[in-house]
Amino acid sequence: MTQFSDTEIQALKACAYALADAARPVTLQHFRSAGLMADNKLSDSFDPVTVADRGAEKAMRDVLAELRPRDSILGEEYGFQQGSSGLTWVLDPIDGTRSYISGTPTWGVLIAVGDENGPVMGVVDQPYIGERFFGGFGEAYCDGPMGVRELKTSDVKLLSDATLFTTFPEVGTSQERLAFEAVRDQVKLTRYGTDCYAYALVAAGQVELVIEAGLNSYDVQGPIAVIEAAGGIVTNWTGGPVHEGGQVLAAANPNIHAQALTLLHDYTG
Amino acid sequence: MTQFSDTEIQALKACAYALADAARPVTLQHFRSAGLMADNKLSDSFDPVTVADRGAEKAMRDVLAELRPRDSILGEEYGFQQGSSGLTWVLDPIDGTRSYISGTPTWGVLIAVGDENGPVMGVVDQPYIGERFFGGFGEAYCDGPMGVRELKTSDVKLLSDATLFTTFPEVGTSQERLAFEAVRDQVKLTRYGTDCYAYALVAAGQVELVIEAGLNSYDVQGPIAVIEAAGGIVTNWTGGPVHEGGQVLAAANPNIHAQALTLLHDYTG
Repeated sequence: MTQFSDTEIQALKACAYALADAARPVTLQHFRSAGLMADNKLSDSFDPVTVADRGAEKAMRDVLAELRPRDSILGEEYGFQQGSSGLTWVLDPIDGTRSYISGTPTWGVLIAVGDENGPVMGVVDQPYIGERFFGGFGEAYCDGPMGVRELKTSDVKLLSDATLFTTFPEVGTSQERLAFEAVRDQVKLTRYGTDCYAYALVAAGQVELVIEAGLNSYDVQGPIAVIEAAGGIVTNWTGGPVHEGGQVLAAANPNIHAQALTLLHDYTG
Repeated sequence: MTQFSDTEIQALKACAYALADAARPVTLQHFRSAGLMADNKLSDSFDPVTVADRGAEKAMRDVLAELRPRDSILGEEYGFQQGSSGLTWVLDPIDGTRSYISGTPTWGVLIAVGDENGPVMGVVDQPYIGERFFGGFGEAYCDGPMGVRELKTSDVKLLSDATLFTTFPEVGTSQERLAFEAVRDQVKLTRYGTDCYAYALVAAGQVELVIEAGLNSYDVQGPIAVIEAAGGIVTNWTGGPVHEGGQVLAAANPNIHAQALTLLHDYTG
């Protein structure tokens, strides 16, 4: 894992803030506007790309060109740009486009920076609420309507006391859905369709589990950094690293993680 | 229907605002707090009542005792209190307790005033976002992070272009779920689990349909007033009045309403 000096840490943190600040006005310019135009990016599913999505990523790439010209960039909209520093910024300008186009403020701007081992720092930003979840380098906090608050994951130990968030039934294969349902049947409460905001709620100690499938690296790296800095665990459904995407299991603590992993295991052989 | 003078309209509107203002700090005091205590109000389902729920209704009842001592009150937590004016305030201090206890800002404070024919004015207030949806007496607007904006429902005419929100699969009988699925299979996009916020999004023109079952009068009267003032239609699944609760169909316009009603009809005979 790359080592970072205090100066470098401050520079990376300032850059993450500058990126989130740059994306906010661009995403908000079109949020809740009438007649929002949305492409159908994937022919067989509903994943609209809006003008705001592309504009926000462009705005963030402009910030990186200024502040971090030697770093690589991987963005949802404009792909990979090779740098020379060994660090990569991973950007999802609007995660949760279905929420975005339906006016629900649970979409977010996802930002992470890291190397081949995964993210070392990340941000989940919700521009409409004005709420920023930050995690990295030993710090985890939320800066939002109630001020700055430390983020700390839940210490609920039993699956039967846990709350689970998911984007099912909207995503996943039928086999993946069976795996999800095996966990769903054991938890106290399941909530649906809250996109990246669900990961922020794990970091905030409000929710114990998120289970999703079919994610990309830019969907998950920001959340991984924030949750891990707040004390949680994010892996794939077999317990391995998931910063390159796939089937995601985010858990508040090792107990919850182990119980969910055991149930998912039967569907991942 | 009761007639109202301009003076009376201003007094009712000021009272609705005073109620929402009184509920905000009480609900926020416990939102996102660790170890939120929740009763299990219904033995067979998860409908927690929090300290905040009760405190917020008490705070609103205190406002009514001061400003509107002759009006009746119907509240989720403390039931019916008979007045003499012919008007009733209908209060749900925290609609969406599952969202509330999981930290998701799509719960709301619901306020309505009306008579036996239904609400004439209503508010859906989201304290964490600082967002107030108002409808009544020919006005409909949202006062939130982007300022004050007029509310106007969507003019999307075809179900195949529509977005549907629902609390299914969390609520409803199996027969009700079949009815919901008949509509779901025809719309462009379905989103799950957004509680009263979904009704606000219909009023805001972001969403064309909400379909729910098992609602109470205090769950639906605020939303009815806001949506109707913004140009939409709210009925039960057979097209009749729904201000006393039950199976709710909220639609952006008459075309969408008629198409959804036809599909629901097969399951309501």
